Amino acid sequence: MPELRKDPVTGRWVIIATERSKRPKDYETLRMEPRPGVCPFCFGNESLTPEEVLSFRHNGKRNSPEPDWWVRVVPNKYPALSFEGEAVRRAEGLYDLINGVGAHEVIIESPDHQVPLAALPEEHIREILWAYRDRLIAHSKDPRIGYVLIFKNQGPAAGASLDHPHTQLIATPIVPVQVKEEMKGAERYFEYKDRCVFCDMIGQEERKPSRVVEGTNHFVAFEPYASRFPFETWVLPRRHQGHFESLSESEVGDLAGLLKRVLGRIWNALDDPPFNFMLHVSPPGDADTEWYHWHLEIIPKLTTVAGFEWGSGFYINPTAPGDACRHLRQADWEVPYKKPPRVHQTTGS
Amino acid sequence: MPELRKDPVTGRWVIIATERSKRPKDYETLRMEPRPGVCPFCFGNESLTPEEVLSFRHNGKRNSPEPDWWVRVVPNKYPALSFEGEAVRRAEGLYDLINGVGAHEVIIESPDHQVPLAALPEEHIREILWAYRDRLIAHSKDPRIGYVLIFKNQGPAAGASLDHPHTQLIATPIVPVQVKEEMKGAERYFEYKDRCVFCDMIGQEERKPSRVVEGTNHFVAFEPYASRFPFETWVLPRRHQGHFESLSESEVGDLAGLLKRVLGRIWNALDDPPFNFMLHVSPPGDADTEWYHWHLEIIPKLTTVAGFEWGSGFYINPTAPGDACRHLRQADWEVPYKKPPRVHQTTGS
Repeated sequence: MPELRKDPVTGRWVIIATERSKRPKDYETLRMEPRPGVCPFCFGNESLTPEEVLSFRHNGKRNSPEPDWWVRVVPNKYPALSFEGEAVRRAEGLYDLINGVGAHEVIIESPDHQVPLAALPEEHIREILWAYRDRLIAHSKDPRIGYVLIFKNQGPAAGASLDHPHTQLIATPIVPVQVKEEMKGAERYFEYKDRCVFCDMIGQEERKPSRVVEGTNHFVAFEPYASRFPFETWVLPRRHQGHFESLSESEVGDLAGLLKRVLGRIWNALDDPPFNFMLHVSPPGDADTEWYHWHLEIIPKLTTVAGFEWGSGFYINPTAPGDACRHLRQADWEVPYKKPPRVHQTTGS
Repeated sequence: MPELRKDPVTGRWVIIATERSKRPKDYETLRMEPRPGVCPFCFGNESLTPEEVLSFRHNGKRNSPEPDWWVRVVPNKYPALSFEGEAVRRAEGLYDLINGVGAHEVIIESPDHQVPLAALPEEHIREILWAYRDRLIAHSKDPRIGYVLIFKNQGPAAGASLDHPHTQLIATPIVPVQVKEEMKGAERYFEYKDRCVFCDMIGQEERKPSRVVEGTNHFVAFEPYASRFPFETWVLPRRHQGHFESLSESEVGDLAGLLKRVLGRIWNALDDPPFNFMLHVSPPGDADTEWYHWHLEIIPKLTTVAGFEWGSGFYINPTAPGDACRHLRQADWEVPYKKPPRVHQTTGS
């Protein structure tokens, strides 16, 4: 019989297929050909993006014409929200609206078009994490901003419109409902137990580690008990931390290694699947940091969200999290790093 | 500048591209070839499905071997929830679970494999609506059931695993979070205003009908102000009604005609897009019927839900609802009804 499992943070229910659980090869993921055209994120094409807001480069000069960078952050050329103006709230009859003020940036993970995040050297991933941190701090200071969401779409089926590996950042004038729900749930738990629900989850997962994919000194990655999606994987710091920005240098190094191995296992177990990840952090300020614990949610795109999910908010997960964990642990974590030519890289003509 | 608009029921925000709004032909929807194989929902293949729980046929005998039916309802062969057993609640450490008890049925809309809902005669659609109503009533009487969701996936990209036009029903032991959120929001509004928020929406939409796609004596179809998806369309009864079951005969006839025209316009404007629809009704019993107003939400599948949406619960809608409405109104509503051969219909070899 299937199981209805409840997410202890949000209270959301999922339906888990505990019998005849689908194995990795039972999923057919949609593959698309690399898109042709000049890639604006490649070495030599820097002039095709808006001006850098951050870059890590040898000469240290932002927007330098020399292709000597390893991580670049640029505003999105087609932003979902506009950086100019004020977040004015107003009504239209019974409806409410706010000007679409915010920020939308792209973190170009490396100059190499064909090297996915999981194949980058650990030291390089560390640099990407520093870029996340820098941009989080920068936007959190903007009084118009209520929340900063960092997320990644890899593969067209997961919503990526460019093939070159990149992460995105969207800063919104209000706290998104998804984060609010998590914070509300975490606060409710804290009021009742005087403990962080995420810390308790880590504790329970590690006592009987059948869902733990990877663990290091500072981090743990597991398949959540009430995973919405097959092979959904969460990464959490062991030390209770509300803000991603409070990471220490040794923690960043540790996280880079763990993230590489987790993404590598997903890559190998599921044959380079399309996926999304989302970094959930406390909103700017310290109001929620006592009960909210930042974490990264990784969701491979293997199933189609359809009428039942849209209508109910329930998810049907055809692979039990324990089974997903076993497959991920059995998979290799190493993704071969093939260094492609570094100048004027494009994916076609 | 884009606009952040708030759904007055759930409080969920969406980002609406008010400038350079995408037109229908700007969307590329994924098309797939009809799937080969014997179709279990076609005339003559009745023995391939589990036994009927309801059918409308000339001789009136359920599970009669004669292919004389026009609507059939059968249990899903691969149900998401099991019909047998009790909904036992228990804990696993800090986690909560319930046995996956419920029901999962398929409403086969007609014996004709290639005729979509929008192309069926109005009188036939009426029969499908009666089947929805009958099954809603049947499951609402089961004390183990907390909610009955009727929904449709059309096209593989919208999650349909069989091409033959069909609707599904899933009955769950608890009220789904999506419906709960809507009810909570509607109750909050009612407490404040002593009015139904859906009735107020209908009022505001009709006073300045720039988002109204179709209207009849008893129903109205409009593009919601805070549409999550391009060409999202809601159908509501004008008379405040919590339960779909309270529909009168004349209302069912009216709804069949309106639904045909709305789906026909979507078909023609967007060139037969994949879509989902979900029927949101009050849970069994009368506790919420004062503030909750049943409605049908239709969402064409034109965009990819990606990291930002998963991480935030925000949606980015690239077509402003007013523009979507204009395109739908300009489109023809008639979808040609080509009657295919009626016996042993399959889609291939």
